[in-house]
This record gives sequence, structure tokens and C-alpha cells, in this order.
Amino acid sequence: MQKQESPTFLKAITIRDPSDIHSIKEDIKKDMILILRVTPLAHKDVDQLRKVVEDLYTIAKNANADIARLGEERIIVTPPGIKIWKPEYDLK
Amino acid sequence: MQKQESPTFLKAITIRDPSDIHSIKEDIKKDMILILRVTPLAHKDVDQLRKVVEDLYTIAKNANADIARLGEERIIVTPPGIKIWKPEYDLK
Repeated sequence: MQKQESPTFLKAITIRDPSDIHSIKEDIKKDMILILRVTPLAHKDVDQLRKVVEDLYTIAKNANADIARLGEERIIVTPPGIKIWKPEYDLK
Repeated sequence: MQKQESPTFLKAITIRDPSDIHSIKEDIKKDMILILRVTPLAHKDVDQLRKVVEDLYTIAKNANADIARLGEERIIVTPPGIKIWKPEYDLK
């Protein structure tokens, strides 16, 4: 019997506006791996950024996804079954 | 019957020396998703960086892995079964 497997996609995108969170939520539901650049939003409005990051963490928890910062610029979200290896974040 | 699935790991690491390529090659063989920060090596020696990036592309091709730049600082490598979505790279 052949194993049925569709590929998982890794998508690198930039969050430019809080409204981008809707399509990101859909991508998380589709079990995509997301690498989200948040710097343009950070430069525009730090309060909006804080809210977006909070929302992302809530969405990730609810979807059983893993989430972590990647440097100053990016946030990684991975679906269940993909875990983020975190030693470097502690060492920084 | 239960499906046997061990999690895939996403590992974010920094390449500081060309010798780091050996453990990276092992991680690629283990089907890890790698996000490799290359800026420290770029600042140290651009020729070493060029050689390391060439080696990475060769290793990735041989392992049937997908590979792409992530901004100026990083390189992503994904195992077979995980594809990198690339529209943003074209738009930059």
C-alpha cells in the first residue's frame, strides 16, 4: 500500500498590516510552516505589532502549533508534528 | 493501527565557520528543517561564505532537499516532503 502524502509548505511572508493576520490564520489551519517578518509593522506601529504578536501566539496555541522568535525580525510558526528546536534562543 | 510518526525538527543555527558544514550535513540527512544564519561568516570572510553556500546547495540537491535564501542573513533547507513557497523572493 502506498503512503498518501501531500507536501508541507514553508511560506516566508511579511506582515505589513494587522489585517494580514486573517490569511495567516488560514495558513496555520492548513498546517503550513510560516516564517513571518514583522519589522515593517514594528517600524510603523509598535502597539499594532504587540497586538499582532499576541494574536499569533493565541492562534498558535489553539492550533497546537509551535511558535518562536527568529532574531529581531521574524516569528516562526510550525504545525503539530513539527517542533522548533530552541537552544539558540536561550544562548543569545 | 496507529501511524508511527516522530516529529520533524526545525533548527535555527548560525554558521560561524566552514567546519560547521559537517554537522549541518548530518542534520539534513536526519530530515531536519534548517534555518542557517550566515551573516557572521559573511563578515569574517566572503570567500569562505561563498564556498559554504555552494556546498550547502550541493548537499541539498543530493539529499533531494529544498533550499532558498531568507533575506540577506539566512538560508533555509527543508527535507523532501517540505517545499519552500517562493513568490516573495521574486517580488523583492
